[in-house]
Amino acid sequence: MSHVKSNKNPLVTQSDFGLEDGAVASMYGVALSTDPDLQIHNLTHNIPPYNIWEGSFRLAQSIAYWPQGSVFVSVVDPGVGSDRRSVVAKTATGHYIVTPDNGTLTHVDSIHGIAEVREIDETLNRLKGSEASYTFHGRDVYAFTGARLASGIISYAEVGPECDPASIVRLPYRTTVIDDGAITGIVDALDVRYGSLWTSIPREEFLSLGFEFGDRVRVHVSHQDGTVHANHVTYVPSFASVEVGESLAYVNSLDRMAIAINRGSYARAFDISTGPNWHITLGHPA
Amino acid sequence: MSHVKSNKNPLVTQSDFGLEDGAVASMYGVALSTDPDLQIHNLTHNIPPYNIWEGSFRLAQSIAYWPQGSVFVSVVDPGVGSDRRSVVAKTATGHYIVTPDNGTLTHVDSIHGIAEVREIDETLNRLKGSEASYTFHGRDVYAFTGARLASGIISYAEVGPECDPASIVRLPYRTTVIDDGAITGIVDALDVRYGSLWTSIPREEFLSLGFEFGDRVRVHVSHQDGTVHANHVTYVPSFASVEVGESLAYVNSLDRMAIAINRGSYARAFDISTGPNWHITLGHPA
Amino acid sequence: MSHVKSNKNPLVTQSDFGLEDGAVASMYGVALSTDPDLQIHNLTHNIPPYNIWEGSFRLAQSIAYWPQGSVFVSVVDPGVGSDRRSVVAKTATGHYIVTPDNGTLTHVDSIHGIAEVREIDETLNRLKGSEASYTFHGRDVYAFTGARLASGIISYAEVGPECDPASIVRLPYRTTVIDDGAITGIVDALDVRYGSLWTSIPREEFLSLGFEFGDRVRVHVSHQDGTVHANHVTYVPSFASVEVGESLAYVNSLDRMAIAINRGSYARAFDISTGPNWHITLGHPA
Repeated sequence: MSHVKSNKNPLVTQSDFGLEDGAVASMYGVALSTDPDLQIHNLTHNIPPYNIWEGSFRLAQSIAYWPQGSVFVSVVDPGVGSDRRSVVAKTATGHYIVTPDNGTLTHVDSIHGIAEVREIDETLNRLKGSEASYTFHGRDVYAFTGARLASGIISYAEVGPECDPASIVRLPYRTTVIDDGAITGIVDALDVRYGSLWTSIPREEFLSLGFEFGDRVRVHVSHQDGTVHANHVTYVPSFASVEVGESLAYVNSLDRMAIAINRGSYARAFDISTGPNWHITLGHPA
Repeated sequence: MSHVKSNKNPLVTQSDFGLEDGAVASMYGVALSTDPDLQIHNLTHNIPPYNIWEGSFRLAQSIAYWPQGSVFVSVVDPGVGSDRRSVVAKTATGHYIVTPDNGTLTHVDSIHGIAEVREIDETLNRLKGSEASYTFHGRDVYAFTGARLASGIISYAEVGPECDPASIVRLPYRTTVIDDGAITGIVDALDVRYGSLWTSIPREEFLSLGFEFGDRVRVHVSHQDGTVHANHVTYVPSFASVEVGESLAYVNSLDRMAIAINRGSYARAFDISTGPNWHITLGHPA
Repeated sequence: MSHVKSNKNPLVTQSDFGLEDGAVASMYGVALSTDPDLQIHNLTHNIPPYNIWEGSFRLAQSIAYWPQGSVFVSVVDPGVGSDRRSVVAKTATGHYIVTPDNGTLTHVDSIHGIAEVREIDETLNRLKGSEASYTFHGRDVYAFTGARLASGIISYAEVGPECDPASIVRLPYRTTVIDDGAITGIVDALDVRYGSLWTSIPREEFLSLGFEFGDRVRVHVSHQDGTVHANHVTYVPSFASVEVGESLAYVNSLDRMAIAINRGSYARAFDISTGPNWHITLGHPA
């Protein structure tokens, strides 16, 4: 079976625009006007409005499963029109992320690592004729630049001047801490439709405490340093190991620890949300 | 007009994951890492969580409109991590369906027919490095295997050992019954946004009762064998044949009978849902 | 970098079908059965059911960002099965729109201009075997015809006989009026997720009243000629120019005036909707 091999990189788009209006389609149109053979995909466009944290997490969740060289455009941009920088990061995994420099790179930086950063030179990398609009850089700058980079019209160097990766904006992100036989991390995200708590605690750090399948795990959640939830659950390989309605700790698809109710929503049941102020501790029962 | 003809088959994905997070994008990334030239599409990712029945129906609704050889990946998988089998069915219509063997093939089997079934050999057909995760076979097994099959990297025989098509898991699916001048079937699905009841009753069986456009039709709905609704509607070619707010019986786009309110939701108006326990009878007025 | 250049035009689909069931996927399947190499994209499938006005606006919002020759299929079709015509419009911008002739072309006609219109000859341009179904022309006629046009299987002339562009159905669309130092237009649409009011008032007409950044603007909204809202906001380049919670007038991404609350929903805050009966006046404070 012979075929013409693509030498394009896919363009993968993310935003908080939703899929209800013409915003995402306009980004697609701009990208395809740049190169009609480009392959464009969605990460998600249902990031909650202005939620940079969640945009940051969804990138970290997904990029490593894509071919090296894939270009991600992420537009959660409450500061559009301000002097926040527009950048393209090259990750340690060989992926590119085109984004406002507003914290969107936090999780990728922490989990995968960022190798290089360039600031977008808008005198070169901006849709012609869009200068009078100050509110849709997703279309006029990010989709345009991402498409040109993915299709090879510009090289990474032609994005614009290099920046110090240490200079990018980071949201507060607490690394996991092991203390007194328990491990504390963040409730990074929800498995949205199922309501599982996805923590920042890597499987290996959790296992270093000596847990084995079938063990009981003490769960403690605090929000802004006040306790909001405490429980005991069972550490099992998957949902199928417990009864419907039973709570569990398991290794999620990012190789980190998660807490769930089988066929229920742990987040909704106990009113738990996500972000840097939501801390979770896993330990042995007292 | 000359062009390079694709010799790939499209990959069509369905799940109950929603489009709010990075799950579907991770499946896409895995598929494109397998073959960057693959064309991937969505059937829907908004199957209600754990609703195998609806996943089963949506496949039957759609597959026949796709080119022969198209590969469908369907992941409604409440039993992920259990010992339920993972299979690839080849339908009588020449399409492939990659899915957990949990009832998802019910409607396709009943409506289109299943010609062959193979169990996925996960020693060969599983994303490298994913063995420690037990909760995302949609990414690690189904998208991976579907992409390899669609792109021709593996043949159908290389999926794994053949199974008896009679051995697949089927949800209870009552065939239509004609009795005493009336025909009884199932409320298979809703035309989601419009609230029409899509029944399992084929147009030809309905017409065998002697109905013609303009005739009144007696509608009777029961749930778990108790009557929940009775009404009379008019059999017409389409919504345009009745007033706004008027009820109608019509032939839906799958050549089966449907019941609706023009510009209203029949399902919501009368609190009717779908599945094997929702029976509907159409007959002549008494 | 050499590659095989596409000589296809993209097919861009819009409807009020939602993404919850198999309707959109069936349209995709029909299009790809016509030509497996076709590139298909979504404008949006979340047009509110039966809302022709919004379908009309979303086309006008998006088409100009797509390559010339792109084919749009728009199916908001409450009159399916009636004798409403099916047409393909060629716009002054060089794009094609396949749609029921029910008002969907209103905004494109007003904003971009329509150069030619042809009525679809369904004896040639209809999916084989679909004649018994009267309710899914989106699949059987529009996707089928759009795909054949986009892939070059039929020419524009082969769509069917030419019609007078003046004969197409138009929704009432009031042009902007300048009177007594104020300008009145329509609330055309919302920036759905953010709740901004997108007006039909072009930036240049607004600026002709002498406004400069920092000026206060009097906003007056009426519905069916009764006043429903009056306010004063500041004209600024973008959201970043005002405090969170503050109201603003700005130039939206279509080069028209919009009214918003930074990080809030203007539409929800003041219960304002869209359409030809929602008039908005911008002027200097008294």
